[in-house]
Amino acid sequence: MASALRAQRRGLVAWEASPEKTARVNTHTTYLTFNTEKRQEIIDITEEVEKCRAAAGIKEGMVLVSAMHISASVFVNDHEPGLWKDILDWLEKRIAPWSPDDYRHNSGTGEDNAAAHLRSLTVGHEVIVPVTRGKLDFGPWQRVFYGEWDGQRPKRVLIKAMGE
Amino acid sequence: MASALRAQRRGLVAWEASPEKTARVNTHTTYLTFNTEKRQEIIDITEEVEKCRAAAGIKEGMVLVSAMHISASVFVNDHEPGLWKDILDWLEKRIAPWSPDDYRHNSGTGEDNAAAHLRSLTVGHEVIVPVTRGKLDFGPWQRVFYGEWDGQRPKRVLIKAMGE
Amino acid sequence: MASALRAQRRGLVAWEASPEKTARVNTHTTYLTFNTEKRQEIIDITEEVEKCRAAAGIKEGMVLVSAMHISASVFVNDHEPGLWKDILDWLEKRIAPWSPDDYRHNSGTGEDNAAAHLRSLTVGHEVIVPVTRGKLDFGPWQRVFYGEWDGQRPKRVLIKAMGE
Repeated sequence: MASALRAQRRGLVAWEASPEKTARVNTHTTYLTFNTEKRQEIIDITEEVEKCRAAAGIKEGMVLVSAMHISASVFVNDHEPGLWKDILDWLEKRIAPWSPDDYRHNSGTGEDNAAAHLRSLTVGHEVIVPVTRGKLDFGPWQRVFYGEWDGQRPKRVLIKAMGE
Repeated sequence: MASALRAQRRGLVAWEASPEKTARVNTHTTYLTFNTEKRQEIIDITEEVEKCRAAAGIKEGMVLVSAMHISASVFVNDHEPGLWKDILDWLEKRIAPWSPDDYRHNSGTGEDNAAAHLRSLTVGHEVIVPVTRGKLDFGPWQRVFYGEWDGQRPKRVLIKAMGE
Repeated sequence: MASALRAQRRGLVAWEASPEKTARVNTHTTYLTFNTEKRQEIIDITEEVEKCRAAAGIKEGMVLVSAMHISASVFVNDHEPGLWKDILDWLEKRIAPWSPDDYRHNSGTGEDNAAAHLRSLTVGHEVIVPVTRGKLDFGPWQRVFYGEWDGQRPKRVLIKAMGE
């Protein structure tokens, strides 16, 4: 288990790895910790996914990328800042407005983030990235994103590569 | 193949298992059958997922949890009853109102559940749970749920653990 | 790598396969290319998923089905044309209206398809189909669909079977 602080990626404050090489299938697990400046942010983590694949030495298989919190998402879409703003607006205006008073979850629990849970349900909390011939097998515009819907505190993302 | 009735879990009426140990990767498949009292319900099935992992004897790998019906969901979120009610309200008011007369699916097919299909599409019908060092590799609040959007009849969920 | 034009499936213009048999786990990857007549279409691809499974010779495992574009979806639901129309209407009226002027993504990028991205996020871009005893382990009504949200040009879908 190695742990290192990295400053390269906005909001990324920790990087741990857990290689579990077995006799039959290679596995490598990486845990990223994000602590975002804004409460909602969208962060491209494709490079981190590729690093986990490379660490596992996998040529055929897949990489699971999964938020470890229930008020965040992992999704595949476009590296286009205008679209990221569209996504944040759309979640707020159309899918699940923040309005804390409208939700039961926000009374009695000390929470005000019910909307973040509903956004996580809509966009999803995980993706599976296929690996073929030693590469993330993506179409031309596909990138992996961490969607933070209730940040400004440490939140983790698991990346697990499995294959041969 | 073993089959047993269990009374412990609300709505759970059958539990079947299909261990398929192969030479190289361990696999274990469990089928749960739910027959819910209400037409819409959210049920925590994390224990059943862990039992399938343990039955497969997997330390590294993953567990696929997948609804076998197209009017239900499987998702990862919070064990908080207030939130479960928020989710049911949100699906009805914002995502896909039941209103049977508004959908083509409900005319000619004898069905009135088009909204349940749309809710399944929004929330998703499956999740992949990572397994690391012999445990479901979850963050502190993550639990697996079966979301029944059109119940009061037997509906199945597949759990398949794969790894070593 | 084999490539063939097939006329059997509406909108399907190419079919490539990449068998990567390894010593331990069988893998087979198929790439479908769709060029739909309409800009939005829903196409049943269950047969193609089963063909990939059979080509991999997998009895236990899973099949990943993943859109390679960020304005399309892959999902599991019902083979019922009335419902497909309901889904297209629901995406337009309730989830993400096309209205190009409402999105930042559509200014400066030469694109008008921001809504197609949001629909892809909502419905998801991939599914994992379990394989048990040599069959896609589906419930009675489950089928796999390609959801084209911005077509009339070549778009690819990856199918990767993994197991034994």
